[in-house]
Amino acid sequence: MESYQSELNPNTRILMGPGPSDVHPRVLKAMATPLIGHLDPRFLEIMDDIKIMVQKTFRTRNQLTFVVSAPGSAGMETCLVNLLEPGDEALVCVNGVFGNRMSDIVERCGAKLFRVDALWGSPVDPDQVKEALGSCKPKIVAIVHAETSTGVLQPLEEISEIVHDAGALLVVDAVTSYCGAEIKVDEWGIDAIYSGAQKCLSAPPGLSPVSFGERAVAALERRKTKVQSWFLDLTMVKNYWAGAQRAYHHTGPVSAMYAMREALRLVLEEGLENRFERHRQNHLLLKEGLEALGFEFLVREEFRLPMLNAVKLPDGVEDGPARKRLLDEYNIEVGGGLGDFAGKIWRIGLMGNSSTPNHIHQLLGALKEIL
Amino acid sequence: MESYQSELNPNTRILMGPGPSDVHPRVLKAMATPLIGHLDPRFLEIMDDIKIMVQKTFRTRNQLTFVVSAPGSAGMETCLVNLLEPGDEALVCVNGVFGNRMSDIVERCGAKLFRVDALWGSPVDPDQVKEALGSCKPKIVAIVHAETSTGVLQPLEEISEIVHDAGALLVVDAVTSYCGAEIKVDEWGIDAIYSGAQKCLSAPPGLSPVSFGERAVAALERRKTKVQSWFLDLTMVKNYWAGAQRAYHHTGPVSAMYAMREALRLVLEEGLENRFERHRQNHLLLKEGLEALGFEFLVREEFRLPMLNAVKLPDGVEDGPARKRLLDEYNIEVGGGLGDFAGKIWRIGLMGNSSTPNHIHQLLGALKEIL
Repeated sequence: MESYQSELNPNTRILMGPGPSDVHPRVLKAMATPLIGHLDPRFLEIMDDIKIMVQKTFRTRNQLTFVVSAPGSAGMETCLVNLLEPGDEALVCVNGVFGNRMSDIVERCGAKLFRVDALWGSPVDPDQVKEALGSCKPKIVAIVHAETSTGVLQPLEEISEIVHDAGALLVVDAVTSYCGAEIKVDEWGIDAIYSGAQKCLSAPPGLSPVSFGERAVAALERRKTKVQSWFLDLTMVKNYWAGAQRAYHHTGPVSAMYAMREALRLVLEEGLENRFERHRQNHLLLKEGLEALGFEFLVREEFRLPMLNAVKLPDGVEDGPARKRLLDEYNIEVGGGLGDFAGKIWRIGLMGNSSTPNHIHQLLGALKEIL
Repeated sequence: MESYQSELNPNTRILMGPGPSDVHPRVLKAMATPLIGHLDPRFLEIMDDIKIMVQKTFRTRNQLTFVVSAPGSAGMETCLVNLLEPGDEALVCVNGVFGNRMSDIVERCGAKLFRVDALWGSPVDPDQVKEALGSCKPKIVAIVHAETSTGVLQPLEEISEIVHDAGALLVVDAVTSYCGAEIKVDEWGIDAIYSGAQKCLSAPPGLSPVSFGERAVAALERRKTKVQSWFLDLTMVKNYWAGAQRAYHHTGPVSAMYAMREALRLVLEEGLENRFERHRQNHLLLKEGLEALGFEFLVREEFRLPMLNAVKLPDGVEDGPARKRLLDEYNIEVGGGLGDFAGKIWRIGLMGNSSTPNHIHQLLGALKEIL
């Protein structure tokens, strides 16, 4: 018998990597709901529900708030390709993999890239941004709120002011922080933001919540060229999400949207503040246990992400074999390092449904046996 | 109570539009399976299973066979942005909405667009293609195998020869025909092909099976510029699907891939030939019933798609009100016309799990009461 002929039978994993996180049974159940059409009036209501809940979780009133029918990377690309035209200048703050990815996309847009580079594992300093803005006139400044590759939480309020003083738009990657730490889109003056479904929202991967503020919408409307991606072109996508006609653009991912709706409902039932506090408390519990085992955090305490714990491996612990044992013997997934940190750090996720004391006790128990 | 606070409760619809089609309970159940990581060795095995089954259903040995983590429109864009560079020439055959969409994307790639236009509702004549190739030197010729907007099945073998004689690559849209009618990628010399999950495969919308042949891969490798989309860039995506390292690119849509695997298994269990014959037989049953009610087919018999029946409304039947009654009173979804055909035709889908005599009996019974 060929492998594909056998019944689907994955292991029951405990997901403590950089995402996906464990998904609540209600979300799994929602996905198993029989489908309706992507233009069915009932489905448009479901989209409306999702839009309202994404607004609430982003803390924004932005009308152009919606979900990209593809993973977080496509959400990143959505923000950049819609705001940039060939010849525009863009300043990207880079302190990890995802800042690099934004830089790459900026260049693919034909825009002129300027970079602010900070040490991986540290936040970007507002003064660096200010200085960089002295030698370029960017249309956008892009920055990562929660660097999944390093575990750094980036303070945004001061930088937002600097960016707006320079007449630029602020584009924010909130893939890992969304629904796990405070994001105040309106209060912080974020012009465009994208996230992912599979981190602290604990929905399955494949969708990306996005919101554009008024200034970003105005920039979109002032474009002289077509958006280079048809699939991500918001001048069309927005009519499917909010137009008077709800015009067909692409076929909406019905089942994934069922899951997204249920995951968002769970977030609002818990309450954002309670959810953030849960993520903070579990981070502290994990920290205590890991430090007792000889792990050191990569990031200075004040800039640590509670949901993505980047820790240096203790001497004598080999990355690959140790993670393999965790997976094979305990069904626990943690993430390895990326780029220069490969083999040197682990990225331990406590995201959404995976942010519980039970997860932590299982991991610490396993580590005590392995190390 | 706000609408989003209530439990997910869509109607139980009978999906007979242009997709999504009804999804088998085994596929729904697969989606409710708890998640594993997108780089978990077990998930990579699931991807391998899917790749083998997509090869079998496309009847190809193409190594670069995979699934785009986004709907069919993104599959279309994947083929075009990876094969075209600014300044390339491209010839697109247009006899409906999806040929138009390909033309639009070709221009967004900075390529020079040439078109062959045929009457909507008719196939493209090979002689038209031959003639057009006399006045351009395209890198690709793109054509729709199954025009979802009109119900036309496009014969491809003769055109494939003409295209290759001219030294061009043949790019084919098989969104609606895939798993419902014969597609022989290798035998017909198709260089790049894309489809969707939600038509005759009867998986939920959101994924797009794609295959690139050797000539297309060579063109990809000869590129002088980066692919304009980061998310769809096959020079990177292919390493996640088939590289020695299975390198991280984006987060794979785990649950949707579970569904895709199960839907493909159902296709192979039924057998491709049996499945095509079922689609043909049910098309004939529907045809007999519709013609008795005064509907006329838009497309000449020999070029009709069995899974997408485009029929002109009988005199006196109003599109909107009649479809609304079908949906509200019988929970049956059929599709309206697009473009010039809006209000004039219906598109009745008999796709995958929705291609059964029971579906047809329900629709015909309801129509008898409504008309």
